[in-house]
Amino acid sequence: MKLSIIIIGDEILIGQVTDTNSGAIARTFGPLGWDIASVRTVADNAADIRSAVANALVESELVICTGGLGPTKDDITKHTLAGVFGGKMVRDASVTANIERVFALRGIKMNDLTACQADVPDSCRVIQNRFGTAPIMWFERDGHVLVSMPGVPFETEGMLPEVAAEVCRHFHSDAVLRHHCLMAGGISESALAQRLEPWESALPGHMHLAYLPVPGLIRLRLDGRGSDAGTLDADMQRETSRLKELLGDNLRYDGDATAAEIALAACRRRGFTMGCAESCTGGTIAQRITAVAGCSDVFLGGVVSYSNDAKTALLGVDPSAIATHGAVSREVVKQMAHGTRSQIGCDCAVATSGVAGPGGGTPEKPVGTVWIAASTPHATECRLLHLPGNRARVIDRAATEALLLLAELL
Amino acid sequence: MKLSIIIIGDEILIGQVTDTNSGAIARTFGPLGWDIASVRTVADNAADIRSAVANALVESELVICTGGLGPTKDDITKHTLAGVFGGKMVRDASVTANIERVFALRGIKMNDLTACQADVPDSCRVIQNRFGTAPIMWFERDGHVLVSMPGVPFETEGMLPEVAAEVCRHFHSDAVLRHHCLMAGGISESALAQRLEPWESALPGHMHLAYLPVPGLIRLRLDGRGSDAGTLDADMQRETSRLKELLGDNLRYDGDATAAEIALAACRRRGFTMGCAESCTGGTIAQRITAVAGCSDVFLGGVVSYSNDAKTALLGVDPSAIATHGAVSREVVKQMAHGTRSQIGCDCAVATSGVAGPGGGTPEKPVGTVWIAASTPHATECRLLHLPGNRARVIDRAATEALLLLAELL
Repeated sequence: MKLSIIIIGDEILIGQVTDTNSGAIARTFGPLGWDIASVRTVADNAADIRSAVANALVESELVICTGGLGPTKDDITKHTLAGVFGGKMVRDASVTANIERVFALRGIKMNDLTACQADVPDSCRVIQNRFGTAPIMWFERDGHVLVSMPGVPFETEGMLPEVAAEVCRHFHSDAVLRHHCLMAGGISESALAQRLEPWESALPGHMHLAYLPVPGLIRLRLDGRGSDAGTLDADMQRETSRLKELLGDNLRYDGDATAAEIALAACRRRGFTMGCAESCTGGTIAQRITAVAGCSDVFLGGVVSYSNDAKTALLGVDPSAIATHGAVSREVVKQMAHGTRSQIGCDCAVATSGVAGPGGGTPEKPVGTVWIAASTPHATECRLLHLPGNRARVIDRAATEALLLLAELL
Repeated sequence: MKLSIIIIGDEILIGQVTDTNSGAIARTFGPLGWDIASVRTVADNAADIRSAVANALVESELVICTGGLGPTKDDITKHTLAGVFGGKMVRDASVTANIERVFALRGIKMNDLTACQADVPDSCRVIQNRFGTAPIMWFERDGHVLVSMPGVPFETEGMLPEVAAEVCRHFHSDAVLRHHCLMAGGISESALAQRLEPWESALPGHMHLAYLPVPGLIRLRLDGRGSDAGTLDADMQRETSRLKELLGDNLRYDGDATAAEIALAACRRRGFTMGCAESCTGGTIAQRITAVAGCSDVFLGGVVSYSNDAKTALLGVDPSAIATHGAVSREVVKQMAHGTRSQIGCDCAVATSGVAGPGGGTPEKPVGTVWIAASTPHATECRLLHLPGNRARVIDRAATEALLLLAELL
């Protein structure tokens, strides 16, 4: 069965805010057997919303829209949906009670504008929003369902499991979908594609391989679909094993993992703790590691030694090494890695020092020049990178490469 | 004139990758006077691509699509576009030369699959992709234009200025658009909306206010559109001044700024340097500050003291304070802030210590309990937060609040 997603909001359309709700919805409903037919982003504009809803209801049994439910004048979703599905606006007592509950939690008083959030078309059924004040509305027409959810990602993500459960009850879906990811590295996408081509062409019709390059890695996703879970699981297992054989040394991780997760897993397997010292990556490595829940058994801490003095004060880097070789050098990044291990008392460390730009480049060390180091109780390795792209890309890629270097060294 | 955007790719549709290309395209073309009519995300599937292209060409003069141009089997965009616009596939010598150039830069040899990237329909004009191997294709029909760009954000973002220049030449656009942002804080969205309502209702028809709440702040965007730049600029200036008066003490920044930019600007105005000490935010504060180009005149460095030992070793936090009050306490976060100033030698510091979850909560200090501190040469302030939501949201919000606390203190 098909699901269409409609993202409502000027701020998304003009690129001021990046939509993450469509991804959260797709990741919830995909594994439940729903084909995502399309994602449409439209303005806070009645005609555009009506047209998107009409098209989505034709192509899909289920339509989920998010956004445009706030208390302010530019939020018009529910009035527009009342126009599409009929019914008049009524104040819903259960929604009023929910708004009062949320405001009490936040310690603020409800005003008239917020009270209006409890007005809903009487053609819908309300699902209470446990994470905010905007009610979730369930509309039906000719067996098709439209669910209107809030635009705030935290609220939508929080309520998705409950909405998904309601949808499952309503549609009695029985298609089975499976995905399995493998992370490959040390090879270009096209060289890998050439190696995998004969196997890929021989895949059964209900299975499909997708290539998803992420900086420094290639994520391979094997998708399968069927009606019987046992048969599909056996198919998936057989083809995943073949794919792993074909990848050989280029397999970096069995599963979907970020570079931080790969590095953490490599340390954990050896019983090692780790830390990091960052200059040009400015906290990105630590941030990526600590984004992984449960990292604290491995990760002890890190230092963002942005200034030269901080490199010496916090990591014990020899000032004469900075004076002789410059902060962006093999010698300094090596001392940063060693200093991390001794100062933080961790077994392993990664370190970065480079020119992220846009300023700071020189003819000898242009923007994109980055030294990375990884150090374990048994070895230390430094590597010089010349990274293309803007500041964000240089930082992103340098952080990834440093984490993968540690995983490689282990 | 209208622009429709089509994002092609299974990985986006199923939510494995978050689309950022549509935002980059909208941010490029919006200020050039283009109305973004819609963004559609579709699968790597010929029928879906054809249908999205057909609908987009009806509603808009300009259509930009991204994705599906890779060398692998699942990339079918250009064959599908050849079907829509006619023409047969030919190998383009200039694209082959570009691919050889890119591969030489990366130090790898071209293989047959990559060579196929130089095949383009002879119904299009090629714009050379200076950031990668997939050619950019320009199609025309009945005065409408479709531009097919790569899916890799770095390549699309890199080539957008050039594509925008070609579009301007082709359409001779002359509409004028202006945006101005103000950041407000310390007030709920609905209370602010109530205060602004009379002014907002009296805005001239060619001007519009949008509310964009981001954690801890409300971004207010005033949009104007006209045919004469001078008149529109005067209108914008007049209404922006009125809005600033209405905001009063709730105005946090004149312009579009993140919490990190607001904190950096506050330090810079006073001639102060800053640093940070992070426990539960794990590098997010440092990462957000160093994402701002040119931060190094203010930001000296930071410490991610994830373990208790790291708090003592790197920041000089008294182990007995941790033993008595726990790591998540006013006393420890205050010592972290003071330790940052003395160890890194910066004038100001922010510090965080909390329980981001999902594990680690206790009845006294449940998940979401976070102590933040800000310290300047004149004062130190600590604040206890009870943040809702999952790990990512707690980290995100704690980092924002700590940065805003420093700005407030200054």
